[in-house]
Amino acid sequence: MAVTLKEVAMRAGVSRSAVSRTFTEGASVSPQTRAKVEAAAAELGYAPNALASSLTTGRTKLIGLIANNFHNPLILEVFDLFTRGLQARGLRPLLVNLSGATDPAASVQMLRQYSVDGVIVASSTLPSSFAQTFKAAHLPVVHAFGRHALSPQVHVVGIDNVACGRMAAEALMARGYRRLAFLGGPEAATSTIDRAAGFVAAAQGRAGVTLSLSYAADYTFDAGRAEMQRLLGQGAGPAEAYFCGDDLLAVGALSAIEEAGLRVPEDIGLIGLNDMEMSRWQNIGLTTIRQPVAEMIEAAIELVVALIETPDLPPEARLFPCRVIERRTLRAL
Amino acid sequence: MAVTLKEVAMRAGVSRSAVSRTFTEGASVSPQTRAKVEAAAAELGYAPNALASSLTTGRTKLIGLIANNFHNPLILEVFDLFTRGLQARGLRPLLVNLSGATDPAASVQMLRQYSVDGVIVASSTLPSSFAQTFKAAHLPVVHAFGRHALSPQVHVVGIDNVACGRMAAEALMARGYRRLAFLGGPEAATSTIDRAAGFVAAAQGRAGVTLSLSYAADYTFDAGRAEMQRLLGQGAGPAEAYFCGDDLLAVGALSAIEEAGLRVPEDIGLIGLNDMEMSRWQNIGLTTIRQPVAEMIEAAIELVVALIETPDLPPEARLFPCRVIERRTLRAL
Repeated sequence: MAVTLKEVAMRAGVSRSAVSRTFTEGASVSPQTRAKVEAAAAELGYAPNALASSLTTGRTKLIGLIANNFHNPLILEVFDLFTRGLQARGLRPLLVNLSGATDPAASVQMLRQYSVDGVIVASSTLPSSFAQTFKAAHLPVVHAFGRHALSPQVHVVGIDNVACGRMAAEALMARGYRRLAFLGGPEAATSTIDRAAGFVAAAQGRAGVTLSLSYAADYTFDAGRAEMQRLLGQGAGPAEAYFCGDDLLAVGALSAIEEAGLRVPEDIGLIGLNDMEMSRWQNIGLTTIRQPVAEMIEAAIELVVALIETPDLPPEARLFPCRVIERRTLRAL
Repeated sequence: MAVTLKEVAMRAGVSRSAVSRTFTEGASVSPQTRAKVEAAAAELGYAPNALASSLTTGRTKLIGLIANNFHNPLILEVFDLFTRGLQARGLRPLLVNLSGATDPAASVQMLRQYSVDGVIVASSTLPSSFAQTFKAAHLPVVHAFGRHALSPQVHVVGIDNVACGRMAAEALMARGYRRLAFLGGPEAATSTIDRAAGFVAAAQGRAGVTLSLSYAADYTFDAGRAEMQRLLGQGAGPAEAYFCGDDLLAVGALSAIEEAGLRVPEDIGLIGLNDMEMSRWQNIGLTTIRQPVAEMIEAAIELVVALIETPDLPPEARLFPCRVIERRTLRAL
């Protein structure tokens, strides 16, 4: 079994507290005691564990990552960067799966039991009130992929979804498309609402441009495919180009269009949002708007670490610029 | 700030130990004391935390999941099932990212510092000696997606990769393909070695059947695409059908074949392994061999929980049956 702090204390002939202090950053211990403890620890093969040091510091070094969509490939990149970023800082990544359970009170209770020092909520579909519940319970929290607000109640790391909607509309109009449509994710998600608002604001009232909006049930391949099949079956016919709420919806729509015998981008153009890993697969080749996920996750970690040290930091929204990634699903400029 | 055990003890007028025992399963505490503690906890909004209870039990309820490939979409399903399975048992999922760092000693040290009660290694490419290092350090460990051995040194939950190779060869021959090839993952990975061995054993010496083997640098889309481009450029021409070491390699190969103007399955057939989520996308439509990931993860969790209770359980390999999922990349039977 693992060597305990108590055994090291006995071998070194010092108190348990002295062993604990030796392995706690910043704690006071005499050079002689430190030398004895380190020699005993080396002899016994003792590795100071976070549990032991958390007794002294009151910190577990556990940071919770809360996600509610484990089926969007973008989350792979999030998990990879989050775990690397925490490991590099000597912190410990704890994963919380909210799929199918979104009661904020139950989540706060669970995170308390998990003894996390802080929480990153990684979701574009959870309402901002969700993260606020953690804040109200005095748990340092950062909402990644959350909604931008003029007077944020919690710390947000995200993108300007309204600006992304505008960017998508401009990209379509610049390529000569005139009958434009938005194929959004769940209608109640703030990301959907903001992307639609920016898209409409940029295209509305432009000469010769028409606009339509529709919504898929989820941010999934199947929902995007089903919604595009419905649109293709309508009497009025499809639009010339679609801004899809995310890449999964766009790839689902792409499959429905090609299966119907139409060509992309000759008959219908598509632009997504996220730039998930599969979008660059040559047999997908999705033109999309890229979120700088690496920078965003790094910022979220830095912010939660700062909040653990200084809980009263005034909430701020850090927004990251997005850009169009040109592939095969829109006509050339 | 969070309510502490000490505050609950003061409010209830009992010792801290009494509060701790009240919230520890199986610990002895009088009904009167329990009632006082529960009333005080409710008044103060105290949630017993895992850190506090770990002091009594010596258990943190943290289970580490070690992965070394965060870019294979199969891991999404693994993370989802692993976190749900642990949460349902009141355990806590800790993620360890080994990408680019495979020194077993350093990992053991890290997991010790993380104070995990047990470890699941989820990897088909780490050698079995990796998991053995944890066992030698007395950390309960289960190797998921690990290699089947006649006398296993650690607990393994996996598939019979040799049988899968055989299944792939039989599937190709039953559909009339005669010039067969294996396009494997990294040549040194045990999963690659076993899949190739089964494939060769089933096809070798069969009338009119020829066999060739080649290997991609990684289990990635890009590596599968590059290897297929190399094969298509060879003078002898490609085989009639390929068993690809996993689905990512197969989708990469598919993209290279279609880009070269060849048709799948008319000119070249493909079968993968895993049945990752994207394989069923209609614009991919990969015929593949499915691993029952849900059952495997559930078994791995059950096994590590059993090992925490009973560290000396003799190592066993639990192997799960795979099956062919028929889609569009092989001719009809």
